[in-house]
Amino acid sequence: MSLWDRLMTPRSVAIIGASADASKTSGRPVGYLLKHGYQGKIFPVNPRASEIEGLACHPDIASLPQAPDVALVLLGAQRAVDAVRELAARGTPAAIVLASGFAETGEEGARRQQALCQAAGSMRLLGPNTIGLVNLTDGITLSASGALELGQLQRGEVGLVSQSGGILGALLSRASARGIGFSKLISTSNEADLELSDFIDMLADDPGTRVIALYVETVRRPEAFVRACRKAAAAGKPVVAFKIGRSESGARAAASHTGALAGADRMYDALFSQAGVLRAQTFADLLNVPAALAAGRTLQGNRVAVLTSTGGAGTLVADSLGMAGFDLPAPDAATAAGLRALQEGDHAVLDRNPIDVTLAGLQPALLRRIIRVLLDSPAYDALAVVVGSSGVAQPELMADALRDSMGHDGKPVMAYVSPHAPAAAAVMGRYGIPAFHEPEGVAAALGAQWRYAQLSARPTMEAAARRPPQAPNDLPAGPMDEARAKALFRHFGIPSVRERVVHDAAQAEQAARELGPAVALKLLSARILHKSEVGGVALGLDATSIGSRLARMAREVRAHTGQAPDAFLVQEMTSGVAELILGVRQDALGTALLIGMGGVMAELFRDTALLMLPADGGSLRPDQVLDALRGLTSWPLLEGYRGRPKADVAAVIDAVLAFGEMARSLGNRLVEAEINPLFVRAEGQGAIAADGVAILS
Amino acid sequence: MSLWDRLMTPRSVAIIGASADASKTSGRPVGYLLKHGYQGKIFPVNPRASEIEGLACHPDIASLPQAPDVALVLLGAQRAVDAVRELAARGTPAAIVLASGFAETGEEGARRQQALCQAAGSMRLLGPNTIGLVNLTDGITLSASGALELGQLQRGEVGLVSQSGGILGALLSRASARGIGFSKLISTSNEADLELSDFIDMLADDPGTRVIALYVETVRRPEAFVRACRKAAAAGKPVVAFKIGRSESGARAAASHTGALAGADRMYDALFSQAGVLRAQTFADLLNVPAALAAGRTLQGNRVAVLTSTGGAGTLVADSLGMAGFDLPAPDAATAAGLRALQEGDHAVLDRNPIDVTLAGLQPALLRRIIRVLLDSPAYDALAVVVGSSGVAQPELMADALRDSMGHDGKPVMAYVSPHAPAAAAVMGRYGIPAFHEPEGVAAALGAQWRYAQLSARPTMEAAARRPPQAPNDLPAGPMDEARAKALFRHFGIPSVRERVVHDAAQAEQAARELGPAVALKLLSARILHKSEVGGVALGLDATSIGSRLARMAREVRAHTGQAPDAFLVQEMTSGVAELILGVRQDALGTALLIGMGGVMAELFRDTALLMLPADGGSLRPDQVLDALRGLTSWPLLEGYRGRPKADVAAVIDAVLAFGEMARSLGNRLVEAEINPLFVRAEGQGAIAADGVAILS
Repeated sequence: MSLWDRLMTPRSVAIIGASADASKTSGRPVGYLLKHGYQGKIFPVNPRASEIEGLACHPDIASLPQAPDVALVLLGAQRAVDAVRELAARGTPAAIVLASGFAETGEEGARRQQALCQAAGSMRLLGPNTIGLVNLTDGITLSASGALELGQLQRGEVGLVSQSGGILGALLSRASARGIGFSKLISTSNEADLELSDFIDMLADDPGTRVIALYVETVRRPEAFVRACRKAAAAGKPVVAFKIGRSESGARAAASHTGALAGADRMYDALFSQAGVLRAQTFADLLNVPAALAAGRTLQGNRVAVLTSTGGAGTLVADSLGMAGFDLPAPDAATAAGLRALQEGDHAVLDRNPIDVTLAGLQPALLRRIIRVLLDSPAYDALAVVVGSSGVAQPELMADALRDSMGHDGKPVMAYVSPHAPAAAAVMGRYGIPAFHEPEGVAAALGAQWRYAQLSARPTMEAAARRPPQAPNDLPAGPMDEARAKALFRHFGIPSVRERVVHDAAQAEQAARELGPAVALKLLSARILHKSEVGGVALGLDATSIGSRLARMAREVRAHTGQAPDAFLVQEMTSGVAELILGVRQDALGTALLIGMGGVMAELFRDTALLMLPADGGSLRPDQVLDALRGLTSWPLLEGYRGRPKADVAAVIDAVLAFGEMARSLGNRLVEAEINPLFVRAEGQGAIAADGVAILS
Repeated sequence: MSLWDRLMTPRSVAIIGASADASKTSGRPVGYLLKHGYQGKIFPVNPRASEIEGLACHPDIASLPQAPDVALVLLGAQRAVDAVRELAARGTPAAIVLASGFAETGEEGARRQQALCQAAGSMRLLGPNTIGLVNLTDGITLSASGALELGQLQRGEVGLVSQSGGILGALLSRASARGIGFSKLISTSNEADLELSDFIDMLADDPGTRVIALYVETVRRPEAFVRACRKAAAAGKPVVAFKIGRSESGARAAASHTGALAGADRMYDALFSQAGVLRAQTFADLLNVPAALAAGRTLQGNRVAVLTSTGGAGTLVADSLGMAGFDLPAPDAATAAGLRALQEGDHAVLDRNPIDVTLAGLQPALLRRIIRVLLDSPAYDALAVVVGSSGVAQPELMADALRDSMGHDGKPVMAYVSPHAPAAAAVMGRYGIPAFHEPEGVAAALGAQWRYAQLSARPTMEAAARRPPQAPNDLPAGPMDEARAKALFRHFGIPSVRERVVHDAAQAEQAARELGPAVALKLLSARILHKSEVGGVALGLDATSIGSRLARMAREVRAHTGQAPDAFLVQEMTSGVAELILGVRQDALGTALLIGMGGVMAELFRDTALLMLPADGGSLRPDQVLDALRGLTSWPLLEGYRGRPKADVAAVIDAVLAFGEMARSLGNRLVEAEINPLFVRAEGQGAIAADGVAILS
């Protein structure tokens, strides 16, 4: 019997610290199990009660007749540690610890959580500080949450994992009010043992779950997270996440320029993108999007018909859909003819979208036929129906018509409820028609379906098979000077400008003759990162001017730094049709590459993409790099904007892949690496690093 | 008696086409008036009834005992026209026409609407196709809308004007469910006569209204709209607008480059900005923001305390506030000490924000004192309170504690209701505490209060008194060549590069000697707008090279256009620390200036501002131009970004003001004008137009 089965469909449950007083929190779980029809054995444990809800009560864990499949521990923090030790000793496979007072409270609590884990040994733990879990598919509740007081828990196909118990309760009550059902609810909270990824992995296998929804505060095991999400994707189950901690990004001060452009929350974007997770942009969308996806219908294009019995709300929904990039074409000739054939004598205007059927709104047979015409029309990929004030009194009428006409698969159908009418929305939800009170919710839900369809359809490109070079094993710790940094990048296959290290005017003149006509002169130093700020950069020199310029640079650098420089770099002057910045960003979540257009404007617009290196140690694929580049607002500059030459995008992809191999190969030793600028030349002419920084530990 | 008084507090109302059958739409209005306690005279008019709801019924308008203050016309479209004619003949001051079938249906309807206006003569009209209006302050309903079936209409201080009747009904039902009350509700719909601006103007004077909310589909009279909104601002009443038609912008194909950057919806942004209107970004915010503003409390800073009894939801709200730019500092030492003094023996952690008072959540006296400490703390400017599942069972407890502690003015206080608990939110709303179910709603509402506070506090700068020049009166229609366009701009005070018009190589060489060392050579043509596309631009020439280059340019232009050019422009080469684009955009809403950073990157990022010229024919103020410039993402480039020299912002402001005077002076004759680039030099060194286009009609 798997861990999942023991947690979700246990044959026996021990309730440690169960109370006979149903008004107490600890008095709830036994009652909840009975109320929802649990068929297995229940062992209440309490030394001061003989019977709870008609069940025999056991004085302690030792006296249980058998080790339960799962134990729900209701005791306070300190006593919970002891109970966990005893449960483990009895051979219990898994325990759920509800008590707070662990790592969430500070250092002392963290030590107590450590003790809890030690006490558990090989027994698996959910919690502590969790509200437990609920298997709605089978009606099994392992929780003391007041949210389960709801008369009837609505069963559905959305599996929800939340890192906050309070939020899980809030989502449950909100979903119930809208007719949105769940398959499984799991609150992971402190995640002393079992965490987010474990449950995503298990939900991917769960036949009762079609969509996985996540309320995320942190991802503790990025690699396991990506693996579990990919498993879900392979099983055809979308994963939708709402993550908080978004505004922390502002607080993080990052020393390097690359760091400044990439905030921690953007790392989550990169991680979610790598894992194929759809990110909910608002809290409401954490219900809106899964509700829509759980309907199991497929969006094949972006053309939406809006059917309405109230003009104002139809326009409102259409406008929101338009804002989200959907197309709302008027009915084509065949569709308009089909609609007209149904509506003899009616004055409705059928050549526009939204399709306004004011007079037909309450005639079910007619409504059915209109819906059929729109769903059959090759002009539309989805249908949004507006329920106006005339419809909310009898929501079943519209819901019936929709259900009868839409069948069990096919194009997505959604409802927008215009007046305040929670009952109408709930009816729609229970009929399997996602229903929304906000026009932006309709747009977000359809938008997520569109992203999911594109995600699923996206072809992958494998990189040409090649053996990336090993990192040189003689690299010292600390910052490298520019010449060494670029040599390292070249080692991994990124071309850089021709250059010579020189120490005096004569060497500089010789180098300028070799590399000219025009050359750049730069201070060469591993310690000084911002050369131009100490007068250490001069451009457009030739062999006749470079000697005196070198002398001046030496003086200026000494004036700024107090030390005379002993080495300089003479470089060929070069340029490209575009210049990029390429950096590495290390974070608790993993390693990402930062790719952006170079120059001051791009910096101001923060037009960068973060591309997470595969957590499993594999290589980036060319299509991932291309997607990241295409996501830049300045991407057209690489494509030959307004008659400019096209850039060598293939060379950029090669450079990014090589940079990724370098980061992978150096692993944690790589503190920082950046190429800025990477000059990208015209198609077929390559990309070339003109400056670079690398710091190793 | 004013029009407003007659509409809102009529002494007598005629209901034309009233039905004795209360189940019919036309049977509702008399009942609604009676139900809500209308004290004036009601004259039902219907030839087939003798009595309605106990009131004597009149067979026709002619037989009314007096002209009513207002008539509510319930008849179908054609008969409504006749009734309006008769009402006008009787000297009725105002009529409300509910019938549809007018301009919203197409050409025939538009003609009928024309006839309706003629029939009304000097009588004022609301509608047609309206659901009427409701004065909740005094309990007077002039509507047949089913939305008024609501048991009790909640009175409040938000005046709502909607251009859609259906949306007005939806907003009313949604607001009622949340405890948000209205002062007046007006559906303007077709606006054959009275429109949006008329009602904003009247609400600005209405003592029962504190905030004005608008659902906008179009602004028919921009000048009147701005005037009315400014009047509201002067009366201390914020105006909040949600506008649809946002995604139309994508559809508008604009021929000129300036046009392509400025979509029609952005013109509304510019108009709202000029009028001081707060734009609601989501449909829900059209209730969220007015509800918050109606509480009448003032936000003096951006530091928010979040008080919560449930950790997860507190963090969620804090994160949303952080995303919206609010600061959530931990309690300072004095505040923390004040909180600790209240909570002996409690384990709550008081050095963090959100301030988690799990255990105090249900102790009203303690809650009151905690709220008082937070509201008195100089460390916070606002308080957001989270109502968790423990609070929703007794929402009055929290609401009482808040009301008692917060007083009638002072810092804004808002509630976030975490579980689905509409009753709790409604209680809060009725207590005058804005309550939200979405964390983003809290952030949007506080964000709008912050914008409103800044709007109110913003100092204005008057332009130096000067008499702008008149437009030359010999300007021919059609496109101007570059030299003439820049001469026009110079006439209004915008400097441009030194240049000479030449016709042959000898003249070009002479000009190059005068303007050198380096000059640009350009084709001079009024017909060819994109000179570089026909080979008509060459840069970096001198007197020795320009002659042969001119010959080559002549050949290339002829190859492209089939015509040999007969004139060229020789210009000094110049540059600046930044380059801008400055354009004029004409639209039904008015005339706006487009200001943006020049160059290809800025174009890709669409980093432009639209600044509406005052609709009253007045001049732009320097502070408005400065605000627009500061709103550009690329603004730092003008301020001396990363050690670059500061740009001459004063000169930019002068150039924009001059461009505005030119547009004002030329009025409708100006089809298009653009300077691109406007080189902005270092501080004190001016700004100079290097290329320009102007087209007159």
